[in-house]
Amino acid sequence: MSYALAADIGGTTVKLGFFSEAGRLLDKWEIPTNTDDNGKNVLPDIASAMDAYLKEKKIAGTDILGVGFGIPGAVLPNGSVNKCVNLGWGVVDIAEEFRKLSGFKAYAGNDANVAALGEVWKGGGRGYENAVMITLGTGVGGGVVLKGEIVAGSFGAGGEIGHIPMMDDETECCGCGKKGCLEQYASANGLVRVAGRLLKKSREASLLRSFDVVTAKAVCDCAREGDKLACEAIRFSMSLLGKAMASVSAVVDPQVFIIGGGLSKSGDLLLNPIREAYGRYVFHASRATEIRLAELGNDAGIYGAVKLVLNALKA
Amino acid sequence: MSYALAADIGGTTVKLGFFSEAGRLLDKWEIPTNTDDNGKNVLPDIASAMDAYLKEKKIAGTDILGVGFGIPGAVLPNGSVNKCVNLGWGVVDIAEEFRKLSGFKAYAGNDANVAALGEVWKGGGRGYENAVMITLGTGVGGGVVLKGEIVAGSFGAGGEIGHIPMMDDETECCGCGKKGCLEQYASANGLVRVAGRLLKKSREASLLRSFDVVTAKAVCDCAREGDKLACEAIRFSMSLLGKAMASVSAVVDPQVFIIGGGLSKSGDLLLNPIREAYGRYVFHASRATEIRLAELGNDAGIYGAVKLVLNALKA
Repeated sequence: MSYALAADIGGTTVKLGFFSEAGRLLDKWEIPTNTDDNGKNVLPDIASAMDAYLKEKKIAGTDILGVGFGIPGAVLPNGSVNKCVNLGWGVVDIAEEFRKLSGFKAYAGNDANVAALGEVWKGGGRGYENAVMITLGTGVGGGVVLKGEIVAGSFGAGGEIGHIPMMDDETECCGCGKKGCLEQYASANGLVRVAGRLLKKSREASLLRSFDVVTAKAVCDCAREGDKLACEAIRFSMSLLGKAMASVSAVVDPQVFIIGGGLSKSGDLLLNPIREAYGRYVFHASRATEIRLAELGNDAGIYGAVKLVLNALKA
Repeated sequence: MSYALAADIGGTTVKLGFFSEAGRLLDKWEIPTNTDDNGKNVLPDIASAMDAYLKEKKIAGTDILGVGFGIPGAVLPNGSVNKCVNLGWGVVDIAEEFRKLSGFKAYAGNDANVAALGEVWKGGGRGYENAVMITLGTGVGGGVVLKGEIVAGSFGAGGEIGHIPMMDDETECCGCGKKGCLEQYASANGLVRVAGRLLKKSREASLLRSFDVVTAKAVCDCAREGDKLACEAIRFSMSLLGKAMASVSAVVDPQVFIIGGGLSKSGDLLLNPIREAYGRYVFHASRATEIRLAELGNDAGIYGAVKLVLNALKA
């Protein structure tokens, strides 16, 4: 029997997964991400963890089809990493380096892109082959999947939906250095920022005023209780997202959008204003695009990483 | 020797092309588009014209690899046309219908997408495989080519760049029924509209005031002579285009943008403000995207249509 392994590398932990050839998740575990010395131990740590696991399970290395990686940075179409600030990496040829460490074939993609691939394969996008995933977390991540494959982009910036320019009058900087990116409004942090501005601007009573620190969860909870200002913040943030999605449809016209990340737990509270704005801004031909929630949670990355391996073997 | 044929169907004429298997344009000619009776004669007319041509040149039908079509309407990924208002067509399975008429294999794409494919193959995008073409004519057409193939989109709306939402305060309707689409500002008509608004709003002297009817050419000519208001109109229109292109890069991150259509004849007068705005709005990873002029003019469509045939044979 053949297997494949996955490593979804985050800034603090690496999620590891062990899959059957058919794509069933057989086991998963985590190891810490050691970012010391420009992250030079990250790949060796993963190789050791996988080696120990396979020895323990008495699985021969020859039964491993390959290892897929999700990387929190830009990955070029050839799979090489082009700068990964979170890990301290510069240019890293993962396939070459990991083969030297482990003997396994390795394939890499950007983490948001790989999560999108996982959701299309086994999650909210099951049954579709053209999909765009948008992850609403600390930032806004994105991944474009066409004909079942990641659109990595010529400079590794495919699916950087969070950096679509949305507002010309923004005064604060986005993490990327620009001003007015979607991420500044539609991420968890963005929603908090939008709510904070509304609180400052108006004198209206709001449940949010009782919080020492307003979090995205607080905004969603208060909106669910009917708090007007919290509702307005969500409508503002998610309308911008719906509008950005209309732009995305005018480029790649996916069958489905998959909304994931921590914020997406609020479900219809977010989906309703997203759908309303999308319908208003989208080109008529794309009005029927599905907008669905992600289903795999934190496992999307390891699923997608293993799909990279299986896609490569198929090609 | 083998050959392929192309038909780029427009609202008034059909451009026909005869190509060698290697993709050299050997001959081209035009026939009128007969849109009577819901365009039922369009395909038969093309079949007859091709048949007559091949007989005259004494070329056997067995030497024809296939026929590619550019269609002025939505074309689904399977190549079937889903409504083409200009021709009066509803749903048309071109491959099936044209095979019945001619015996040839047929492949179809949306005209803007097919022109993009042509430019990538033999024009301004030569040597690239990920490119986005933007055609500035009466409207703003677009075509996305990834890995050398058209992104048709799930609903035939891939590359509908002209309908990216740009302005929330627009009061007039776009041809598509929405308000504030890129096409309303960055097409030839859009540029005229923008100039007209500036003329109305300001009392400043302008060469444009001497025209009975202001055309896009007049705006460009006056801008070239240093007319302040004409320059301002171009800067406004092309900045919006550059900003929209930054959004496109955050989705598919092409290696190159190819700017074509009648307006593009003004070259650097347009490219300079496009590049300036693109640089300001684009995600840093994509700053090096090339922005080039189209090279094939009206022949882009027949080149791309034939490339559809060659791509299909390769697959």
